[in-house]
Amino acid sequence: MKPTAILLLHCPDEQGIISEMTKFITDNQGNIVYLDQYVDREDGIFFMRIEWALEKFTIPREKIREYIDTLYAQRYKMEFNLYFNDVKPRMAIFVSKMSHCLYDLLARYKAGEWNVEIPCIVSNHEDLRYVAEQFDIPYYVWSIKKDHSNKAEVERAEMELLKKEKVTFIVLARYMQIISDDMIKAYPNHIINIHHSFLPAFVGAKPYHQAWERGVKIIGATSHYVTAELDAGPIIEQDVTRITHKDTPESLVLKGKDLEKIVLSRAVTKHIQRKILTYHNKTIIFS
Amino acid sequence: MKPTAILLLHCPDEQGIISEMTKFITDNQGNIVYLDQYVDREDGIFFMRIEWALEKFTIPREKIREYIDTLYAQRYKMEFNLYFNDVKPRMAIFVSKMSHCLYDLLARYKAGEWNVEIPCIVSNHEDLRYVAEQFDIPYYVWSIKKDHSNKAEVERAEMELLKKEKVTFIVLARYMQIISDDMIKAYPNHIINIHHSFLPAFVGAKPYHQAWERGVKIIGATSHYVTAELDAGPIIEQDVTRITHKDTPESLVLKGKDLEKIVLSRAVTKHIQRKILTYHNKTIIFS
Amino acid sequence: MKPTAILLLHCPDEQGIISEMTKFITDNQGNIVYLDQYVDREDGIFFMRIEWALEKFTIPREKIREYIDTLYAQRYKMEFNLYFNDVKPRMAIFVSKMSHCLYDLLARYKAGEWNVEIPCIVSNHEDLRYVAEQFDIPYYVWSIKKDHSNKAEVERAEMELLKKEKVTFIVLARYMQIISDDMIKAYPNHIINIHHSFLPAFVGAKPYHQAWERGVKIIGATSHYVTAELDAGPIIEQDVTRITHKDTPESLVLKGKDLEKIVLSRAVTKHIQRKILTYHNKTIIFS
Amino acid sequence: MKPTAILLLHCPDEQGIISEMTKFITDNQGNIVYLDQYVDREDGIFFMRIEWALEKFTIPREKIREYIDTLYAQRYKMEFNLYFNDVKPRMAIFVSKMSHCLYDLLARYKAGEWNVEIPCIVSNHEDLRYVAEQFDIPYYVWSIKKDHSNKAEVERAEMELLKKEKVTFIVLARYMQIISDDMIKAYPNHIINIHHSFLPAFVGAKPYHQAWERGVKIIGATSHYVTAELDAGPIIEQDVTRITHKDTPESLVLKGKDLEKIVLSRAVTKHIQRKILTYHNKTIIFS
Repeated sequence: MKPTAILLLHCPDEQGIISEMTKFITDNQGNIVYLDQYVDREDGIFFMRIEWALEKFTIPREKIREYIDTLYAQRYKMEFNLYFNDVKPRMAIFVSKMSHCLYDLLARYKAGEWNVEIPCIVSNHEDLRYVAEQFDIPYYVWSIKKDHSNKAEVERAEMELLKKEKVTFIVLARYMQIISDDMIKAYPNHIINIHHSFLPAFVGAKPYHQAWERGVKIIGATSHYVTAELDAGPIIEQDVTRITHKDTPESLVLKGKDLEKIVLSRAVTKHIQRKILTYHNKTIIFS
Repeated sequence: MKPTAILLLHCPDEQGIISEMTKFITDNQGNIVYLDQYVDREDGIFFMRIEWALEKFTIPREKIREYIDTLYAQRYKMEFNLYFNDVKPRMAIFVSKMSHCLYDLLARYKAGEWNVEIPCIVSNHEDLRYVAEQFDIPYYVWSIKKDHSNKAEVERAEMELLKKEKVTFIVLARYMQIISDDMIKAYPNHIINIHHSFLPAFVGAKPYHQAWERGVKIIGATSHYVTAELDAGPIIEQDVTRITHKDTPESLVLKGKDLEKIVLSRAVTKHIQRKILTYHNKTIIFS
Repeated sequence: MKPTAILLLHCPDEQGIISEMTKFITDNQGNIVYLDQYVDREDGIFFMRIEWALEKFTIPREKIREYIDTLYAQRYKMEFNLYFNDVKPRMAIFVSKMSHCLYDLLARYKAGEWNVEIPCIVSNHEDLRYVAEQFDIPYYVWSIKKDHSNKAEVERAEMELLKKEKVTFIVLARYMQIISDDMIKAYPNHIINIHHSFLPAFVGAKPYHQAWERGVKIIGATSHYVTAELDAGPIIEQDVTRITHKDTPESLVLKGKDLEKIVLSRAVTKHIQRKILTYHNKTIIFS
Repeated sequence: MKPTAILLLHCPDEQGIISEMTKFITDNQGNIVYLDQYVDREDGIFFMRIEWALEKFTIPREKIREYIDTLYAQRYKMEFNLYFNDVKPRMAIFVSKMSHCLYDLLARYKAGEWNVEIPCIVSNHEDLRYVAEQFDIPYYVWSIKKDHSNKAEVERAEMELLKKEKVTFIVLARYMQIISDDMIKAYPNHIINIHHSFLPAFVGAKPYHQAWERGVKIIGATSHYVTAELDAGPIIEQDVTRITHKDTPESLVLKGKDLEKIVLSRAVTKHIQRKILTYHNKTIIFS
């Protein structure tokens, strides 16, 4: 894997941005290995993901951000993120009691599918410690009291751990606690959640049982970034599976688990590949 | 097509029902060509669809209902419907201004895909008269005033037409008016509707635009029987299609139209084949 | 609909093409309303679709081709096609005896979904004349003898008709005759076909019956451009549907018909929108 | 989990089989908790799966087989299998070098999703020993020489192990060796394989690369029982995923792995639940 720089940006649409940016990279001996762009014509916004080889690039990597900022960001009112493919994102996994998503994440990690580090798994229960131990990953438990009286304290401890471990994004792998606004603010559009979703939608407890009562013919799962409004953040990935009247609430739960783990892992893949741009509560997913 | 009788029934689950019913048919020289049953173990209800050839059946067809009622319905607290495959259901189509579902229904009708008669098309607008004329089907228009002041009167006229034309079920092919409780009562679980459905669900006007705003990755369509509670009747069929951030509100509408017509036609197919049993706001769809 | 020019091109990948081309359009007062590009890194080929408003464009539309040819095509070894959105493609439909695809195409045409003209329907049978008449489109029949002795003659007559009607592309809507190499050469990557497809594949007659015999759980349909090698041209669109052991050969045929019409219409939509680039027997489908 | 008996049977279709069999169970105080049947009307074959509680069943479980054989099997020319839900099937997993299917199987096993025992994992390579160790399952390696000169010997050793471990079925979780006829005969319709599948089909090496070359828009995976004819045994489960021209051979492989593991696990689930009947190279999958 040769080192590359990855630039994700968006700004008001204007003629000439692509040609300016590609010229800047080419003129400085960067070889562009990926370029995809999209214009939202309703809102007049330009989005781009561009990746180039650093081998012969004449600008030192620690100066690139400054160059882009000075030359383009101010002029085009551009917001941008710059990544390097040899700096691995660091992912914390939060779990409660169900193992299906956790196993799927760790199996991919162990098989080398992902360019990522997983320094820690965090939970409010002891239940899944054995999984963490199978994969030799530190497992931290902070119990949260039923009255939530220690929740703020727990989150402070978790935040300290995340900071110490230089965690860059969090995956809630069926973590059954609400994330506080403070943690969301510390990781804006960097906390990935998975939840069931149905046609029509069901709110409240036991959604699979509700779906069964309603006789739906399709169930789904949605992965999204966590925002302050519960389960309403930018959608990253969704998928569905067909069911029939012969399914029971129990078989729906099993089919739902299969959906959840696949949809969550697809979302995590896109995040690790730096292929997601968020804007106005929506995602642009580059392919 | 040889004549057959089709019996759809449900009752509290009890040992011996299948064996009793199949014995009854066999003993009277009926050759069973279809049998499917399902037990809802949560509610303890038995459902069955059974179809047999009438050729050598010793009970005259006009007496079969009475026999079943006397011998089984009372004893097992059974509710049942009896149909004959050579008595075609008569379907009325209600439309407003969009032609996609109407064309799909009529193309199948004309190609002989369905064992059905379509004696009339009803609308609140003149817009689709040309489609009805292409297929030589009478087209009736009753305008409904904006203040709905003539709605009761219109429905009375429609009900008269339906009665005169011996309509047995109604298909709302993107009909943009709410059906009154009286009409629903006259056709319980015999009015089929189609509507968009999304993950998550959106209420109110312009649902495709809302879905676009929300950045969903999948859109769907749901076909259901109409009940007094709007869009909450028993679901017959659902399907979805994948979309991306590159879709516009307009392209969502087009993809939605393709879904709507296919899902509606699948639901109508199952209804015509007498393969749907409704119970407790759910459908059992026999295959 | 404001007039636009649509340019589809491909050439060996080189730095600077996007910036050159966009600069050319912008410098001449063209407002870019669509730009999508893709680089095949295996083969080192650059593909682009770019569309711009002609309103203030300073180069007259009849000169644009020459400009692009002189300035870029030779220099970059570029192949390109130039279209104008107000010049409607003209589509001929070829049919045999089955109406499902034909109705779906014509219903969309009539509803104004497509920016296209359909000047003629061609067949080797009288069977579907009534459909053409419903939609007031001329229907031409040339019977092909069983020994194919008049096939060359028939194709000459068809080619004359296509020329006279200025047909720009052909849709084989379940046309059960093999297209000759001469016609394929006259319409390279401009004849769209639809055929069933299965996992695994079945060759020979009665594929749905073979699929049933084999007990497959999924059936599919594939739409592709016709090339000299039968059913092996560039794939435009595919879709599948799930089946079970309860399906019969007859129900497979019905499900197959639904797939065929939807997949064919999606392919035709992309072709009409000038969103397909073919290269090395593959398609690039812009979104 | 209360003990039940599960009977899977098929025989030439005849009136009265359901009623006879259900009467037999009911008369002997068995409470039927599942009954599903299907008649293949093309071939005139009756298939049934019936499950009943043994709690009050008056026939001792070791005599049931004899009863069914004497009373029904001979009379109806019936083939049947009898299982007990508290006798867990014993599953051997065969692997080579890829871990994705193995992890998915073991994660479900560990989470208690399946009523199964996994006494051993067999391989021709050391590569996946660490996975077996993570889950504390014995891992056996027999290298097979390139010239296959020791293949018969290896299979004999494997068969001995399978016998010693009372293995009842085998899952080939991306095992890259051909199974010999002897082993297939020892486990008829009890060896489950997974392989990629495409529209159209590709034979030979590097199928994902071939699919990419061909520009397919959909890739798939098929799980089937292994028979003497390679990859042509009864299909248990299939699924597909949509791809685009932007996919690379590498991304196809990743998407293929996700399909393979889900499709294989679904097939294994059905096998463990005793819900598959095979007949004439096809499967009846009860729901």
